[in-house]
Amino acid sequence: VTAAPGTERADCERFDRADPLASRRAQFLVPDGVVYLDGNSLGALAVGVAERVHDVVHRQWGHDLIRSWNTNGWWNLPTVVGDKIGRLVGAAPGEVVACDSTSVNLYKLAVAAQRLRPDRHIVLTDKVNFPTDLYILDEAARSHGAAVRRVAPADVCERIDRDVAVVALTHVDYRTGEVYDLAAVTAAAHAQGALALWDLSHSAGALAVDLGGAGADLAVGCGYKYLNGGPGAPAYVYVAQRWQDALAQPLTGWLGHADPFAMSPEFRPAVGVRRALTGTPAVLSLAALDAALDTFEGLDMAAVRAKSVALTELFIELVDERLPGVFTMVSPRTAKRRGSQVSLGHPDAYAIVQALIARGVIGDYRAPDVARFGFAPLYLRHVDVWDAVDHLVAVMAGEEWRRAEHQVRATVT
Amino acid sequence: VTAAPGTERADCERFDRADPLASRRAQFLVPDGVVYLDGNSLGALAVGVAERVHDVVHRQWGHDLIRSWNTNGWWNLPTVVGDKIGRLVGAAPGEVVACDSTSVNLYKLAVAAQRLRPDRHIVLTDKVNFPTDLYILDEAARSHGAAVRRVAPADVCERIDRDVAVVALTHVDYRTGEVYDLAAVTAAAHAQGALALWDLSHSAGALAVDLGGAGADLAVGCGYKYLNGGPGAPAYVYVAQRWQDALAQPLTGWLGHADPFAMSPEFRPAVGVRRALTGTPAVLSLAALDAALDTFEGLDMAAVRAKSVALTELFIELVDERLPGVFTMVSPRTAKRRGSQVSLGHPDAYAIVQALIARGVIGDYRAPDVARFGFAPLYLRHVDVWDAVDHLVAVMAGEEWRRAEHQVRATVT
Repeated sequence: VTAAPGTERADCERFDRADPLASRRAQFLVPDGVVYLDGNSLGALAVGVAERVHDVVHRQWGHDLIRSWNTNGWWNLPTVVGDKIGRLVGAAPGEVVACDSTSVNLYKLAVAAQRLRPDRHIVLTDKVNFPTDLYILDEAARSHGAAVRRVAPADVCERIDRDVAVVALTHVDYRTGEVYDLAAVTAAAHAQGALALWDLSHSAGALAVDLGGAGADLAVGCGYKYLNGGPGAPAYVYVAQRWQDALAQPLTGWLGHADPFAMSPEFRPAVGVRRALTGTPAVLSLAALDAALDTFEGLDMAAVRAKSVALTELFIELVDERLPGVFTMVSPRTAKRRGSQVSLGHPDAYAIVQALIARGVIGDYRAPDVARFGFAPLYLRHVDVWDAVDHLVAVMAGEEWRRAEHQVRATVT
Repeated sequence: VTAAPGTERADCERFDRADPLASRRAQFLVPDGVVYLDGNSLGALAVGVAERVHDVVHRQWGHDLIRSWNTNGWWNLPTVVGDKIGRLVGAAPGEVVACDSTSVNLYKLAVAAQRLRPDRHIVLTDKVNFPTDLYILDEAARSHGAAVRRVAPADVCERIDRDVAVVALTHVDYRTGEVYDLAAVTAAAHAQGALALWDLSHSAGALAVDLGGAGADLAVGCGYKYLNGGPGAPAYVYVAQRWQDALAQPLTGWLGHADPFAMSPEFRPAVGVRRALTGTPAVLSLAALDAALDTFEGLDMAAVRAKSVALTELFIELVDERLPGVFTMVSPRTAKRRGSQVSLGHPDAYAIVQALIARGVIGDYRAPDVARFGFAPLYLRHVDVWDAVDHLVAVMAGEEWRRAEHQVRATVT
C-alpha cells in the first residue's frame, strides 16, 4: 500500500480493508474520538490486559495469596514474558528475561560487558543517545574504571577500535526515529573484538529486529512503548546464549541466584539468562505486559514492520502534499532508515502539539522544536493517519496553535 | 492485652472487641477459611487497592493514556508514595521515594554511602543478613574497590572501626525475627564516623520505626510485606535530608535528573530525594502500593506495634501451653527484641507448614528447620491466633504433617 498524490480519506478506508493486521485493533480499547500517535511513549490498553490484571488482583493475590508464586506462575513470569518478547526481536527461547527498568538493565549489561572484556577501557556510544542511556553508561564505565567515548552516529563504525569493550547504542533514535543498521554495527564491533549492546526501546514491537541473525551480544528494551505493557511496565534483558555462562552482572539480587530458596550467604548465578534478574518482580505490571504480548500472537514481524512503513509513508506524503514547506522533516525519508515514527520540526512544535491534543490527536513534543508522531501498527488505521493530518492542516490554517494553552510538559518517552 | 494461662477462644474474642485496630480488618479482603500468617511475605489485598488498580487500568491508562502522567499524578507517585511510607518509619516529608526493588535500592545507597566516605574501604554487615542484601553489598563494595566485613549480629557494634564507610543491616531478621536496636547501632556507627544504612523490609508497617529520631542516614525497604502493596510492589529509599545534596548514587536514570524533559546529555541530579530515582516507575504496581498505604491512615505506629506484640505474645503463650517442648523458640521471647513474627524450630518444619496450609493456616518455611509465622496487625485478629494454634495442635496430634505432600517450595520472603 502506497499513497499516491491526491490520496483521499476513501483511499485510506480502502487501505484499511486490505490491511492484514486490521483485525488486531479490536483487541485494544482505543478511546472514541482519539487518534493515538503516542504509542511510542505509552502503548494502548488491550482488552486482555484489563481482564488479566483483574484476575491477578482479585483471584491470584486476593484469594490465593502467597501460594500464587507457584500455583499461578508468578515465579516464572520473568522468563515466560521474556520468551514472548524474544520472539519479537529474533532471540531464541531462554535468551530474554523481563525485569526492572530499561535504565537498571542497561547498567547491568554495560558493567557485565566490560567484565567480559577486562583489558579494554572504553564504552562507545553516540552523542544523541537517549539521555538515560548516556547517564547510565557514564556510571557503568565509572564503576569499572573505564571511560565513555561519545561519537556522532555517522562515525560510530570508524571510531570502534581495540580499546572499546562494548558499543552501546539505541537501535532507533527517540527523537528523529533514525535506525541503525544493527547487523552492520554489530559486525563492526566484533571486527575490533568489542561487544554490541543494543537498546531496543523504540524498535521492539514495531520493527523486524533480528538479534540472533545479527549476532548481537546483549540488549535491553522497554515494555511500555510498542509492547503495550502499560505505564512503567517492566523492561527486559537479552543475553545471547553464548555469553550466558560468563555473564557477571553487578545487581546480584536473590532472583538471579541458582537456588534462591537455599538462602545461601554466597551468590551463585543461575544457569542461563535468569542470572540477569535481581529482585522480586512487580507482578501486577509484569502480568499486564504478559497479556499485552499476546496481541502479537501469530504475527510475523515482517508484516508488522510493513504496516509501520505504510503508515509513516502515508503520513509523510500527506504532510508533504497538504502542508508543503511548513515543517522540516526530522525523520529520514528513506523508509528503511526510519523507525515507526515521524518527527516534524517547527519552531512552535510545542504549541502545535498542544492544539492537536485538544482535537484528540495525541502526539508528543521533544525539546526544542520537534513534534513527534508514533505509529503503532497493531491498533492504528490508515484513516487515523488521514484524520491526524487533516487536523494538523486545520490547526495550522486556523493558527489554533498560537492560542494553545501551554501545559506542563511531562510525557514519558 | 496479655493472655494468661488458661486462655480460651472466648478470651480472644474479648481481646478483639477491645482492639482499637479491629475495624481496619474490614478494609482487607482476607479469604474465608484462611488464617493468613504470611503477611510478612505478601501482605493481603485491601479493598481500596482493587478499586484503585481498576481505575488506573481502565480510566487512567485506557482512556486518558499518556496524559495521565500529568492529569492523574503518575509523575508524582514516587514521592507521594514515599511520603506515605515516610510517615510510618519516622521520616520527614521529602526524605523517601518509592521505586525499583529493595535489592536495586540497596545497591544505590551502598555505593552512595561509600562515596560519602571515600577514604574508607569497608562495608560492614552481619552474616545472617537476608541473602540478597549480602550479595548486593558484595557488588556495591566491589564497584568501589572496597571489601565487606561480615560479623555476628552480637558483635556489630564492637567491630565498627574507622575503616568502616557504612554499616548496612536489616532491622528485623527475616528468619528469627530478632530486632536490632536501630538507634544504638546507628549511634555506634556515627561514633566511628561511619554511616548507618538500614533495610526495613521486615519492620516497616508493623514496628514503630523512628529513622529521624535515631539519626539514621539511609534506608531501604520492601513494599509488599507489611505495607501490603501487592506481589513485587515497588520498594523505597530513605535519604536523611542532611545527605541529600551530596548523595551520588550510581543508577543515574533520567527520573533522577533535575530536569528530565530537558533531555540534557549530562546528568544533573534532582534536588532532594528524587535523585535516588532511576527509570520510569511501574505505575500499576506503584498505584497499588499507594492505595494500600491508605489503610494506615490515621494510625499511630505505636498502637500498631502494640497490637503486633500482643499477637505474637499470645501465639507464643498458646504454643508454650498447648504444645510444651514440641518446638524450639527461634524468635526472641523478649517482646522488644522481636519483630512481628514468631519462628518455631522443628526438624520437620517443612511438612508441618504444608499440613497447616492444607488446613487454611498459611505460614511459611525457611530452610532448614524453621516454621515462620507473621502477624500483620491491621487485618489479623486474636481469634486468628487462637485458631492457628488450635490447628497446629491438631496437626501435631494427628501427625498429619508426616503425610503432608511435599510441594515445590517457592514463597517470597
